[in-house]
Amino acid sequence: MHARDLVEPFPTVSLDTLATEVAKMMSDERLPGVIVCDETGSPFTVLLGLEVLRFVIPPYVQDNPALVRVYSEKDSDALYGRLDGFTVRDMLPPKPDLDELPVVGQDATTLEVAAVMARLHRSVVAVIDGNRLLGAVTVSRLIGHWTPEEQGRP
Amino acid sequence: MHARDLVEPFPTVSLDTLATEVAKMMSDERLPGVIVCDETGSPFTVLLGLEVLRFVIPPYVQDNPALVRVYSEKDSDALYGRLDGFTVRDMLPPKPDLDELPVVGQDATTLEVAAVMARLHRSVVAVIDGNRLLGAVTVSRLIGHWTPEEQGRP
Repeated sequence: MHARDLVEPFPTVSLDTLATEVAKMMSDERLPGVIVCDETGSPFTVLLGLEVLRFVIPPYVQDNPALVRVYSEKDSDALYGRLDGFTVRDMLPPKPDLDELPVVGQDATTLEVAAVMARLHRSVVAVIDGNRLLGAVTVSRLIGHWTPEEQGRP
Repeated sequence: MHARDLVEPFPTVSLDTLATEVAKMMSDERLPGVIVCDETGSPFTVLLGLEVLRFVIPPYVQDNPALVRVYSEKDSDALYGRLDGFTVRDMLPPKPDLDELPVVGQDATTLEVAAVMARLHRSVVAVIDGNRLLGAVTVSRLIGHWTPEEQGRP
């Protein structure tokens, strides 16, 4: 079995999609992340829900967890406003490891997909055929492939 | 808004649940993880799908990604067998950071929940009332709370 056998349609956004729009997509569709395509439409990376959170959380709270207590319930709820006016480009981690992106070719084996997920700590990887996006494989889909019922499949 | 307002029912397993059973749950229910309860039934941690993958991937492949190529399609697909005979206890990371677990009290603010997710790199945190498990908050549910439609809610 290869990545192309496990691929499923997955929502994509561009580098210029509004942060608020991405947050709504992730919420409405219960997504762990979205595929980000570059200016040419080629998949560039996967933006995780956790990265949206990191963008919203004030940096000094990330550095010093005890400071979380200075935010009241209302202050915490108001943090959403930090997404206003920003785009996907702004939310991507500042120094993405460009040596390895969460993208695999359609011929990748299940082990190759698993290894990329584990190494990059990503529960979603994009699957491409050349420059064309085929969709994504999620960790639960991959694990499902490894359950006994699936083992007899061609 | 507090963790108790965002909590949803979430599947739990024990430390002795079979690895194959957990894999099937994650696959069937498309779960990013499951809540692990200890011998007393109290939530202990969250086991992620990524941790199941790490358990399945041969260690020398994790250390040296190039070695993934020595596994054929069939060899890769057969790796599921590595789960046989193991339990949740075996799949948990060898040195969990016991100083901080992916568990929050029901009174945690949205920022506290977000900070725990971001710091522990977990898309799911368990929510407790004392020792009683209420369920979990997922990253997409938390982000959804931060979308404009929700901001007007009491």
